[in-house]
Amino acid sequence: MPGEIVLIAADELREFAADLLRRADLPAPDAMLTADSLVAANLRGVDSHGVQLIPPYVHQIRAGNIRPGVRGKVVSIDGSCIVYDGEFGVGQVTARECCEHAIRTAKHHGMASVAAREANHFGAAAYWAQMMSKEGMMGMVFCNATALVAPWQGREARFGTNPICVSLPGPNQWLLDMATTTVAMNRIYKAEASGEPTIPEGWALDAQGQPTTVTAEAVKGSPMPLGGYKGSGLAFLIEILCAVLSGGAISTQVGGLRVTERPIRTSHFFLAMDVARFMPIPEFTARMDMLVSMVKSSAPAVGYEEVLVAGEPEWRTEAERRENGIPIAKSIWESLEQLK
Amino acid sequence: MPGEIVLIAADELREFAADLLRRADLPAPDAMLTADSLVAANLRGVDSHGVQLIPPYVHQIRAGNIRPGVRGKVVSIDGSCIVYDGEFGVGQVTARECCEHAIRTAKHHGMASVAAREANHFGAAAYWAQMMSKEGMMGMVFCNATALVAPWQGREARFGTNPICVSLPGPNQWLLDMATTTVAMNRIYKAEASGEPTIPEGWALDAQGQPTTVTAEAVKGSPMPLGGYKGSGLAFLIEILCAVLSGGAISTQVGGLRVTERPIRTSHFFLAMDVARFMPIPEFTARMDMLVSMVKSSAPAVGYEEVLVAGEPEWRTEAERRENGIPIAKSIWESLEQLK
Repeated sequence: MPGEIVLIAADELREFAADLLRRADLPAPDAMLTADSLVAANLRGVDSHGVQLIPPYVHQIRAGNIRPGVRGKVVSIDGSCIVYDGEFGVGQVTARECCEHAIRTAKHHGMASVAAREANHFGAAAYWAQMMSKEGMMGMVFCNATALVAPWQGREARFGTNPICVSLPGPNQWLLDMATTTVAMNRIYKAEASGEPTIPEGWALDAQGQPTTVTAEAVKGSPMPLGGYKGSGLAFLIEILCAVLSGGAISTQVGGLRVTERPIRTSHFFLAMDVARFMPIPEFTARMDMLVSMVKSSAPAVGYEEVLVAGEPEWRTEAERRENGIPIAKSIWESLEQLK
Repeated sequence: MPGEIVLIAADELREFAADLLRRADLPAPDAMLTADSLVAANLRGVDSHGVQLIPPYVHQIRAGNIRPGVRGKVVSIDGSCIVYDGEFGVGQVTARECCEHAIRTAKHHGMASVAAREANHFGAAAYWAQMMSKEGMMGMVFCNATALVAPWQGREARFGTNPICVSLPGPNQWLLDMATTTVAMNRIYKAEASGEPTIPEGWALDAQGQPTTVTAEAVKGSPMPLGGYKGSGLAFLIEILCAVLSGGAISTQVGGLRVTERPIRTSHFFLAMDVARFMPIPEFTARMDMLVSMVKSSAPAVGYEEVLVAGEPEWRTEAERRENGIPIAKSIWESLEQLK
């Protein structure tokens, strides 16, 4: 039945996911890491980046595009700048290696960046930014992705949803993890599926590259870069950081998670900045408290009860899901069971 | 007469601007630097950040909020992370000092960042990012600004237009310099002044914090963060980088360029990354050429003749204005003449 869900505790879901990944030939520690990254997304309510990714991951492993057991290698280290080759390993394994290099190097120099090429889908970026933050870093993570988005003034896809993610050391105060499109293409498909004739302005371009609010035209077009030409500029920046600097696949050279005929070849960029080099972490945390309070002290807009800052909705969902379990759509649960 | 302009060669405008600034007590080299940064914006067609800023600069100098001859000082250097105190000097002087520290430190470590507090308006961010790029750096510049923008779900201003600027080493290929609002408040005032009853969706919030397309409501409200909550998240990120990390004024603590009762206290963040640590610059330039070509190869959207990438419109304007001179509105010219 549509809408039916399975409620499952995080620990149990993690074990189940790790088991599926071990069966797909991931070494046990890599399976656990990957499972943990996916369940972390489910806990935060970002289900698009949760365990429902396991079936496409497994299909890509079977197609030879994701290579279990491959760790990748450092191509070059020059001061705080590192180039990494993922060698088509599991995206999460590449990301862990890159985060460790970024943390170690930033502890030495104060800052570090790792540009990784020939990588795969690494789940939600927040997991990796947070991994760096646990070591005192302001962690920034970017990645390029399947070209789905037309550049501003264009009508043919050249950019992915190219996300930006930034996480802070200390307690949960603020965490940014956003695509550089106004909404994901899925939101537009959902509007179509629910029979909504129109979508808000700013969500999509039609097949001619013109802004549209007609759902039927939007599904033939592409998600719109955040605010138009500026979002297009941000997507371009992320393509430079990830693909140009890493020596990896650029723009339409990137494959897709659901395309098995060619490797995915996504690129990532990890930046770590050791906050304690600017001020002691408790002082940073106190200053962040002040900023968060100032922003939240704004009277809410009509229709809202309070001002939320980035990360708050997800932390609330996480608290609730740790208490009550993670809801998984029955159709997704069944697709996972079938992998056994 | 409205619409009347004066056409003036860049060199002449620079000398004239430097003369006005020397009369306002700037030491000759600082006057020349400041004049050059303003005329560079005029050349690029970014007239809002050109010589029309001199009258407010001079008023702030007279009010004691901008202090000519003050160079500021390094508060701390720890590896690649630097905190700088502008000590209310001319914004351009602080920015030059910070860029020099960023360049020198990035040449040593590969990356560097400088968080500057107690600074002033530094003109257009692009000038400083480009200063770093001339030394082989990918230069990033951020600053916070007068709170004009309500946070998402709020109705009271907490953020400035908090721009993001990124520049690359090598030939002119791509240059991003954008506010994190969809449009500047000036665009909304302009719509009002020209008697346009409506503005596009996504430009503004009304005084209740709700999106509006009614010009008369928008002028009572605030410019909308780029794409809604995501732009709000980016503005927040810039507030962290600039104000939190520098130990400077946060959010509504920042004054205004046209407010003389209190110091401006803006904060800046400069990041330099030595591109040659990732790959030789010629290889980087060739890869950038490939990315730019791929993006521009998209068929144009209906209503456009070509896809432009960030920086292109400004470089075209610059070529034209170097040839034909810089047009300055007669009213602005007269306000400059009056400073003599």
